[in-house]
Amino acid sequence: MRIAVVGAGALGLYYGAMLQKGGNDVRFLLRRDLEAIRKKGLSVFSINGNFRLFPVAGYGSSQEIGSVDLVLVGLKTFANHSYRELITPLLRDDSIILTLQNGLGNEDALAEIFGGDRVMGGVAFLCSNRGEPGVVHHLGAGRIILGEHSRREMERAEMVANLFSDAGVPCCAVADLKKARWEKLVWNIPFNGTCALLQKPVNVLLSHPRTRQSLREIMVELIKAANSQGLSSPISLDYAEEMLEFTDAMGAYKPSMQIDREEGRELELDAIFAQPLAAARRKGVAMPRVDQLHAFLEEATRTA
Amino acid sequence: MRIAVVGAGALGLYYGAMLQKGGNDVRFLLRRDLEAIRKKGLSVFSINGNFRLFPVAGYGSSQEIGSVDLVLVGLKTFANHSYRELITPLLRDDSIILTLQNGLGNEDALAEIFGGDRVMGGVAFLCSNRGEPGVVHHLGAGRIILGEHSRREMERAEMVANLFSDAGVPCCAVADLKKARWEKLVWNIPFNGTCALLQKPVNVLLSHPRTRQSLREIMVELIKAANSQGLSSPISLDYAEEMLEFTDAMGAYKPSMQIDREEGRELELDAIFAQPLAAARRKGVAMPRVDQLHAFLEEATRTA
Repeated sequence: MRIAVVGAGALGLYYGAMLQKGGNDVRFLLRRDLEAIRKKGLSVFSINGNFRLFPVAGYGSSQEIGSVDLVLVGLKTFANHSYRELITPLLRDDSIILTLQNGLGNEDALAEIFGGDRVMGGVAFLCSNRGEPGVVHHLGAGRIILGEHSRREMERAEMVANLFSDAGVPCCAVADLKKARWEKLVWNIPFNGTCALLQKPVNVLLSHPRTRQSLREIMVELIKAANSQGLSSPISLDYAEEMLEFTDAMGAYKPSMQIDREEGRELELDAIFAQPLAAARRKGVAMPRVDQLHAFLEEATRTA
Repeated sequence: MRIAVVGAGALGLYYGAMLQKGGNDVRFLLRRDLEAIRKKGLSVFSINGNFRLFPVAGYGSSQEIGSVDLVLVGLKTFANHSYRELITPLLRDDSIILTLQNGLGNEDALAEIFGGDRVMGGVAFLCSNRGEPGVVHHLGAGRIILGEHSRREMERAEMVANLFSDAGVPCCAVADLKKARWEKLVWNIPFNGTCALLQKPVNVLLSHPRTRQSLREIMVELIKAANSQGLSSPISLDYAEEMLEFTDAMGAYKPSMQIDREEGRELELDAIFAQPLAAARRKGVAMPRVDQLHAFLEEATRTA
């Protein structure tokens, strides 16, 4: 299958590498890593075993890549205004667009430009960081849950899920993508937000009972908001405890938002915070802790 | 009147200086400023006009001060374990102890050691900072609201209020000290807490609508919690807006907790956060924003 990876950060590089290793024709749209990857390929340092790919098809523009079967979108969500420019040259009539970006609103934004029938969304539970150009570190997990944005039939989603599974990435297709998105937010908001605000990795926060309780309370707010969104079945309150224990296994992991802050990059506050807060508010559900965390992050990262 | 100032930080130095200037025999228990004040007196740089006092009675121990009519307590609350040692040598049978410390629980702690009948509490709306040793800066406000801890009769409280008023410090005696304490918390918790967490002065936070709203929401939680505490009359929700506007007039003021954090000192989290949270919880009132801010401050200032 011919696949274009648009937004080749830690997530795009890792999944693209796995798909290429699994025998697919993967083409990476690159900026920072372009020269390094053309010259010496892509090295993956993974808890499941290191590997290096060479050659790797790196491109500086979507026009050079041409049309593909599947577009994998891994852009930072604050770059979503580039969807049209970056993705249009990659599309044929039946090309699929799969966004693995964080937060809410990405599938809707893609559907508005390219039509909902093309669009799929996936939620990635992946711990990965970029290294030097041409290097990506896979620190843990990696499972993807994906689904259709507007199509009812599941065949295509299952086909794409198999594509990942065959390449060694655990992947399931689900009918209720919205539920999967909210389940991810139950992790993303407390951990990305609190680690970015306090600039400490997950294991430090989890080791202090007061802070751990604070993370749990954020999750409880999110589960209640999620369950107001008309999901196929409610998320159990036990999910908060499961996510705390899941995160205990990550060690000194720094979520992407913490790294973005350390490196002075913009944070994905709109997709990860503002959109879920607005969705909850539309259903009359307040999330005071999430709202406050969002306000603090906005203020903390304000430059003017 | 003979007055001992115990805990001569920015608050103790300023009020002690005003009381001495007003003709009282004021004796300061000093540590950092002892030598400087003995040598060159105490300089007050005040928005109401600068002045310098010399000589100033500075002492290194309470034993040297001897007994007084009024003990003014301005200790940081995390030093409350020193009450017995520092205050006992200052007391005669009829000595009054007035704590102007922040937060909840100080009068109770004093009453437990010295008996409730001696104890008065006051709430100071004062913007002041210490300068170099022997210097205190009065940046704004200064009003005190004080009351009895357990006595019913108001005469003594009115006498002490007049003592301050006569010395140029606006001061009222009130029957409901608890209400005054909670009114101060409605200011202290959002401003001390948020400025200390984000390390920005009040005017920066107030100038951004999202952050201003976040401060307002914290105040609303506190007003609701206050009104569960059996006050003589409820605090109006309008008080939040009044406090925002009151604070607008402070300019680039840094609350004491922000300065404590900058200078690596312990924060007054127990008296200002934990005690009010516990008091609200006892009445079945949750304060999620206050609770989260407290948890973040604990984590942010944790050294281990």
